[in-house]
Amino acid sequence: MEIGRKIVAVGRNYEDHAREMGSKRPTVPLLFLKPTSSYIHEGSSIEIPAITKDVHHEVELGVVIGRVAKDVPMITAMDYIAGYVLALDLTARDLQAEAKKGGLPWSVSKGFDTFTPVSKFLPRSTIPDPADVEIWCKVDGELRQKGSTKDMIFSIPELISYASSVFTLEQGDVILTGTPAGVGPIRPGQVINAGITNVVEMTFPVTDRPV
Amino acid sequence: MEIGRKIVAVGRNYEDHAREMGSKRPTVPLLFLKPTSSYIHEGSSIEIPAITKDVHHEVELGVVIGRVAKDVPMITAMDYIAGYVLALDLTARDLQAEAKKGGLPWSVSKGFDTFTPVSKFLPRSTIPDPADVEIWCKVDGELRQKGSTKDMIFSIPELISYASSVFTLEQGDVILTGTPAGVGPIRPGQVINAGITNVVEMTFPVTDRPV
Ligand SMILES: [Mg+2]
Ligand SMILES: [Mg+2]
Ligand SMILES: [Mg+2]
Repeated sequence: MEIGRKIVAVGRNYEDHAREMGSKRPTVPLLFLKPTSSYIHEGSSIEIPAITKDVHHEVELGVVIGRVAKDVPMITAMDYIAGYVLALDLTARDLQAEAKKGGLPWSVSKGFDTFTPVSKFLPRSTIPDPADVEIWCKVDGELRQKGSTKDMIFSIPELISYASSVFTLEQGDVILTGTPAGVGPIRPGQVINAGITNVVEMTFPVTDRPV
Repeated sequence: MEIGRKIVAVGRNYEDHAREMGSKRPTVPLLFLKPTSSYIHEGSSIEIPAITKDVHHEVELGVVIGRVAKDVPMITAMDYIAGYVLALDLTARDLQAEAKKGGLPWSVSKGFDTFTPVSKFLPRSTIPDPADVEIWCKVDGELRQKGSTKDMIFSIPELISYASSVFTLEQGDVILTGTPAGVGPIRPGQVINAGITNVVEMTFPVTDRPV
């Protein structure tokens, strides 16, 4: 499964995270795009560009689409899933805050190279109930985020249905389903560790982006 | 040349358009992403989704990247160009205005299926000087936009250099270089016509998106 074409990410999909960001609970899913050039896999490092002083971790369950999905109803939405990945939706919070203030796009703050670390591909069968898994993130061994996908505001079928009404989803597209509370800064020299309890775990060191 | 992976679009890159939008002249290029699922070629129709009442045409010169570009200096930036496309960066202006007001991403307003009509691929040799071509757009035969790429705020080398410092650019990625003044609404039943003077012309009918 090549996760190659499009990343549709969902903002504010856990109430506790929306609250920690000072944001309101959304009434429709808040979608944005990340470029696939931001993917890295284990063995690579997260690189912090010089232009930001405040990159945050956001641990998220990623849904990998298995076939073309357009205007898919909720009732059949799960049939379009090939599997999952665990992902970090890294965010230059300082650049994002500036963008929000200016009414500008989020693409740069979310899109730098290495800003979407992902686990290996997890076939559907490894997560029988994606609406009830625990995801977590540690920084230098200290637990920063732990949440259950039970607490998503919009469920996976709702997200697939809604996203497919805007963008045709294609094989290998990934939907990042949002992050629970506890987001915070990561710095060069630290090590990020994230997992889906009893399913997968991944580790990424953080470095300065070489100039 | 498959234009398949990433679309990096540039906002407010012509002073007359920034002015008509009530926006300031940017000090760095304003980048955002569009999904490749929004591409259509001649023979297809532009589809207006029911959720918007105000889709605008924006005619733009698209630069097609020929090889991997990361942290490319301006001086060699032109070497990374495989060719060009003429493009329309269609925009649901009402949804974009709401997003701007709320500090939210532009992805949905810019990303619907059919929202990036493009011409055939134009090899480099067909546009010897991309910094001096005229682009235009007509709605039902009436001229709405006509501008010269001479008037870009950030030049093509500046855009490639800057974009490649944020996102690694890959073969087939397209940079949409911004639109001159004259943007305005398109409606089902109309026909959009756009061109690069003496190089290419393209035609797209507009319909309601089927439900
Ligand atoms: Mg996120
Ligand atoms: Mg200049
Ligand atoms: Mg545009």
